[in-house]
Amino acid sequence: MTEFGLEIAATDGAARTGVIHTAHGDIRTPAFMPVGTAGTVKAMLPQSVRETGADIVLGNTYHLMLRPGAERVAQLGGLHKFMDWQRPILTDSGGFQVMSLAKLRKITEEGVRFRSHIDGSEVFLSPERAMAIQGLLGSDIQMVLDECPAFPASERDIETSLALSMRWARRSRAAFAGKPGQACFGIVQGGVYPHLRRRSAEALQEIGFHGYAVGGLAVGEGQAAMFEVLEATVPSLPADKPRYLMGVGKPEDIIGAVKRGIDMFDCVLPTRSGRNGQAFTRQGTLNLRNARHAEDLGPLDPGCACPACRQFSRAYLHHVVKAGEIIAAMLLTWHNLTFYQDLMAGLREMIAQGRLSADSGSPFAP
Amino acid sequence: MTEFGLEIAATDGAARTGVIHTAHGDIRTPAFMPVGTAGTVKAMLPQSVRETGADIVLGNTYHLMLRPGAERVAQLGGLHKFMDWQRPILTDSGGFQVMSLAKLRKITEEGVRFRSHIDGSEVFLSPERAMAIQGLLGSDIQMVLDECPAFPASERDIETSLALSMRWARRSRAAFAGKPGQACFGIVQGGVYPHLRRRSAEALQEIGFHGYAVGGLAVGEGQAAMFEVLEATVPSLPADKPRYLMGVGKPEDIIGAVKRGIDMFDCVLPTRSGRNGQAFTRQGTLNLRNARHAEDLGPLDPGCACPACRQFSRAYLHHVVKAGEIIAAMLLTWHNLTFYQDLMAGLREMIAQGRLSADSGSPFAP
Repeated sequence: MTEFGLEIAATDGAARTGVIHTAHGDIRTPAFMPVGTAGTVKAMLPQSVRETGADIVLGNTYHLMLRPGAERVAQLGGLHKFMDWQRPILTDSGGFQVMSLAKLRKITEEGVRFRSHIDGSEVFLSPERAMAIQGLLGSDIQMVLDECPAFPASERDIETSLALSMRWARRSRAAFAGKPGQACFGIVQGGVYPHLRRRSAEALQEIGFHGYAVGGLAVGEGQAAMFEVLEATVPSLPADKPRYLMGVGKPEDIIGAVKRGIDMFDCVLPTRSGRNGQAFTRQGTLNLRNARHAEDLGPLDPGCACPACRQFSRAYLHHVVKAGEIIAAMLLTWHNLTFYQDLMAGLREMIAQGRLSADSGSPFAP
Repeated sequence: MTEFGLEIAATDGAARTGVIHTAHGDIRTPAFMPVGTAGTVKAMLPQSVRETGADIVLGNTYHLMLRPGAERVAQLGGLHKFMDWQRPILTDSGGFQVMSLAKLRKITEEGVRFRSHIDGSEVFLSPERAMAIQGLLGSDIQMVLDECPAFPASERDIETSLALSMRWARRSRAAFAGKPGQACFGIVQGGVYPHLRRRSAEALQEIGFHGYAVGGLAVGEGQAAMFEVLEATVPSLPADKPRYLMGVGKPEDIIGAVKRGIDMFDCVLPTRSGRNGQAFTRQGTLNLRNARHAEDLGPLDPGCACPACRQFSRAYLHHVVKAGEIIAAMLLTWHNLTFYQDLMAGLREMIAQGRLSADSGSPFAP
């Protein structure tokens, strides 16, 4: 029976590379988790997600609890079987989406009451229910329910929110009924205030989690502020547990966060950008809608081995983006996820070789 | 150097099975051609189209001439390279789409002038231009420009239209500058009038083509009338040349047409239905949007080996259709195309074994 845990193979400055063992297999770290909101990484078959190099995907509790429903997914054999992804799955707690997507939210000590953005029905989410849902889904890494304050917020508001999140973290941890190889992660909050971040990190460790996430970032504070928060927070987290920076981010954000000791990331950027005709390449970000690609026989990214780059020209990609063809979303999503996984593989290799702290520190730098 | 032509391996009543040789490889007949309107079979990668068993796809001259433009496709190396489909391609002449999609059409002896449905620009299409475009695309099987009268139409109107189509057919054939292995097909018109169909078939043979299509059907005349037209037309066509029934159709239409001697088909039904949550199965047509599938752990079609049927439950397909996820279009298109190719493979086998005329005559019948 697999026990959940991080095995560090090498460190380089604050950065580390290794493997996280889970009930559904290993995750090579630093890891990028494609977002599979509603039981699908949009525009990708699960085998294609795997082909990009992903070891783990993220599922959204908020979306899945509303449709098709956690009890139904459980009855159908769990999320892995439902979406045919037999590797690790991390689920968020639903808190962030309730704040950003749902209508008529009311937060109390008990939890949050809201209306579904799909059918307007009233739903209640508590720390206990968030964990029960993630258990029903069969998630390998389950996140505590926290409150996600809007940015910017005053120190006082952040402190109040943080206190609630820490009480919810304790209730979430108590409600977590993990099977062998499953994990429960706490989430450090505290806005851009270093002392609140440290307080949060310490409070979570008192409770005790299998891993620690840093939440409430990439909400508009900017990269410099984000890196400052990481520098204030990461040293307060245990070295032997996975660290997950939620909702981040751009390639340069990920590189900087890995250098500051983060092991796991998720972000909709590669998938959402792909559906919008945007591509991440070793030569920078490209908008395929741009007319300058219309007659370009060259590949999207000569350094990439994905189907979009191997089989098609920029001219073709431009054409299918302009024509609104589904294959545009399929190919650019596949490419962007490959780019992100190539980035992570490059970072892992640089850390293993002790090169990440020594030079410009980007796997794709010239 | 491949010479274009049909090689018949077996016959069974009026039905035949064999192979058509083309510049880009062989087509097993009877053949179903998935529609790849704008340089993509919607929601499919080309390798996935091939995995369904397709030997040939259809491209639409009308769409490709408007975007990205035939000259541009030629400059980019031709349609095969552009869309990464290295097997045979048949292109229509654009005539049918001009009639159904374009605005402000004006038909003269010279050709048809219309406004693009994409940007409103004025475009002129003549028999000569239709063939030039198909040559620029590099199409293996090029169709003559014909006039497609609306249904219903009087015998007199059909006769007038037919006369124009036959003059255009002569001009198209003269303008066809085929390379080795490429073909030019004439199109039999004549509405539901047997003597006009026969007149058209004879007029085309006087001109001489590499293959003969039956056009102007599946426009609302019904299956019985369509089969009557085939029974009146096919015997007037040369036995040693491919016969192509344009825009058909439902599985039962295809079975009946194969029994009446047709070798090739195209239709948007499997792809369009797939994008609309409809699936063709050995148990009949299913609407995956229907709530009765919500908890069904069974496969879409137990007799099918496509990814939708191998990897997922009906409950999952229902969920992604309801959620409007791109994977729904991907999986159901893949399934429907597989169903159509399995149907064609079954028909080929039944003809080879002399069983198609002998029994109920459907590969999927119990």
